[in-house]
Amino acid sequence: MLPEIPPIVSVDDHIIEPPDVFVGRLPSKLQDRAPRVERRLVESMSIKGVAAGFDYKFGLDGTPMDLWFFENLIYGYTKVSVLMADSDNSSNERAATGVLFDEMRPGCYDPKFRLLDMDANGVDRALCFPQMPRFCGQIFFNETNDRELGLACVKAYNDWIVETWCGESGGRLIPLCIIPLWDPVLAAEEVRRNAARGARAVAFSEIPPYLGLPSIHTGQWDPLFAACEDTQTVVCMHIGSSSSMPATSADAPGAVGVTLMFNNAMASLTDFLFSGVFVRFPNLKVAYSEGQIGWLPYILERADIVWKTQSGWTGVDLPEPPSSYYYRNVYGCFFQDAHGIKSLDEVGRKNITFETDYPHADGTWPRSREVVAGLLEGLDDHSVYRIVRGNALEMLSLDDPLAPISGLAE
Amino acid sequence: MLPEIPPIVSVDDHIIEPPDVFVGRLPSKLQDRAPRVERRLVESMSIKGVAAGFDYKFGLDGTPMDLWFFENLIYGYTKVSVLMADSDNSSNERAATGVLFDEMRPGCYDPKFRLLDMDANGVDRALCFPQMPRFCGQIFFNETNDRELGLACVKAYNDWIVETWCGESGGRLIPLCIIPLWDPVLAAEEVRRNAARGARAVAFSEIPPYLGLPSIHTGQWDPLFAACEDTQTVVCMHIGSSSSMPATSADAPGAVGVTLMFNNAMASLTDFLFSGVFVRFPNLKVAYSEGQIGWLPYILERADIVWKTQSGWTGVDLPEPPSSYYYRNVYGCFFQDAHGIKSLDEVGRKNITFETDYPHADGTWPRSREVVAGLLEGLDDHSVYRIVRGNALEMLSLDDPLAPISGLAE
Repeated sequence: MLPEIPPIVSVDDHIIEPPDVFVGRLPSKLQDRAPRVERRLVESMSIKGVAAGFDYKFGLDGTPMDLWFFENLIYGYTKVSVLMADSDNSSNERAATGVLFDEMRPGCYDPKFRLLDMDANGVDRALCFPQMPRFCGQIFFNETNDRELGLACVKAYNDWIVETWCGESGGRLIPLCIIPLWDPVLAAEEVRRNAARGARAVAFSEIPPYLGLPSIHTGQWDPLFAACEDTQTVVCMHIGSSSSMPATSADAPGAVGVTLMFNNAMASLTDFLFSGVFVRFPNLKVAYSEGQIGWLPYILERADIVWKTQSGWTGVDLPEPPSSYYYRNVYGCFFQDAHGIKSLDEVGRKNITFETDYPHADGTWPRSREVVAGLLEGLDDHSVYRIVRGNALEMLSLDDPLAPISGLAE
Repeated sequence: MLPEIPPIVSVDDHIIEPPDVFVGRLPSKLQDRAPRVERRLVESMSIKGVAAGFDYKFGLDGTPMDLWFFENLIYGYTKVSVLMADSDNSSNERAATGVLFDEMRPGCYDPKFRLLDMDANGVDRALCFPQMPRFCGQIFFNETNDRELGLACVKAYNDWIVETWCGESGGRLIPLCIIPLWDPVLAAEEVRRNAARGARAVAFSEIPPYLGLPSIHTGQWDPLFAACEDTQTVVCMHIGSSSSMPATSADAPGAVGVTLMFNNAMASLTDFLFSGVFVRFPNLKVAYSEGQIGWLPYILERADIVWKTQSGWTGVDLPEPPSSYYYRNVYGCFFQDAHGIKSLDEVGRKNITFETDYPHADGTWPRSREVVAGLLEGLDDHSVYRIVRGNALEMLSLDDPLAPISGLAE
């Protein structure tokens, strides 16, 4: 028998930013340089797209397109990353071709409509990642050298998230902020500024060195981690937040990269487990978004074997087995992963969360309840509650107002 | 109760090449340029080491060292990649420091002593990978531009493997040959030359583009794959055979890279499954060496989901789900992997093989029987036979002379 699915808390959906995100939100001298949308008739122009973390180019056959412009970046949403209003959005409809705002389901970019789409999918609350700024706001670091402009954009974006995207949702849209990636101290300040108004999740890069930033082994990120620990802010690392995605070769079919998407999450987790960050910040919480979970049992076992048998020559000085930090400090997340659920003891019943990935190609909207019910078949009510709702609320330090349900959180 | 372990066939051990491998085996005009060993007193000289696929440098405190010289390459074996004669070889004894041949267990480099060490470990037969030439003979491509010299070295190495390393072992040391990586047609010829004298395994790179070579998607490797299919030669891809290893940053502890070592094997498998190679060569067999297996269930499930839901926009035209090619054409291999064995239905009872990784730091010698018995506890005799012996022989198209045991291969 399929389990009853409580109102879902999705820890990874996406905002398709509407054109007015930055309007009136930057200091006047910088306002003109904020990201802006223009409709262009694009005649087989080559556009750089950044859907789902991939850089690719696509030619357009003279159709109009809504494009974001920021410094030298031109960015367009594609059918891979949005749901279309006038389509069944089946996999055959997905393509790396551009779209107009008018053609999208309004739930992509309008929070009022997003709530209706969440209703239709059994989703109570959702944590939404940025899209155009990339999954941890990389463009405000990588696409401009003007740090004043970058910081103004980061703050404007966060203000819009808190006030507009989430502000009128009655708590159903949970704020996830971005940081100035180039300065861990400024980043810590931004975390504290947002935490003071209730935002307890921050997007970070899985592997900062891939962006040209210091690794977590340098200790340079400690001010950020300290701020997150102090304010109970979860460090959320979405696949693709290192800009480069795992790939075998440029001529491999896209499916190879899409299959391997979790790879940087796995590398990042290994990095964190061996880094000592969780020794220095025992209450820090990190989350891997869209990483899936079926690979966790292998990597946790392997890390413990390496720790036990090869610490000497591999530069490790860690008081406890790496997996113990996973169970204490880390949350995984899935949307289609039968092997992960089959391995519940290893992935940790209290460590995994669910996402719908709305409105991306990989997502399960509007069948998320059906999909997760199928995956969780045979599990007890307590586990089902934890996986689709309770763990996410615990991770985000949010109480569950549905008191009868929260009794299940054992 | 622990299962009884039949005589093991290890599909991944390593040769530590003795100094005379190339002596008298090249055309006279090239003989002086073949790799050679010299003992040098090294005074904090910086040496490039290539143990287990890692490039690293180590300073030496004025001790003598046996070094290989080939063109501009200077290569030294280290305590990470050999077993020492006068040591318990515990993890504390392992280090990226150089050793002399006299200090090693002679089983490292002498096939007669190797057989004795195999006896002590319950190992009946072993397939051994190159060490100094790197795991698929990369140095004869990457360390010289002289293709005539490279080819002469490749052939000399294979002649030594077949005649000397394996020739006097009574079939217990199974030949694994290398190929001229720069030319798929020459590579095919070398496969046929070696198959004609009974060598049915060839080392190949997991991800040729990482070496600057064409990907398997180009079709350029088809002559090689055709030769392997025709001659029942297994394509063996050892972790590290793409020269670059997965890493998050230069300052991460070595344990991060050692934990993630299987990563290129996983990427390579995904590449092969989506490439159509197994559609064109339905009887081709490929093996992932030292890749472990616990990650397989996740990647097979994920590849099938991507195939089913996202083939359209991701450039895939594959008649069957990717996992079907895995079960038909691919062998995995493990030496310590409880999760993989727990997931026997998913990794495939007929698809996995065992290795001891002698004489590397990660290996289980001389406790391999004990380790594998612990991992296989509770399995039926048929499965135990297949995993530690039968599947490897089947993969290598070798009959099992132990008739009563081969009756278990169902």
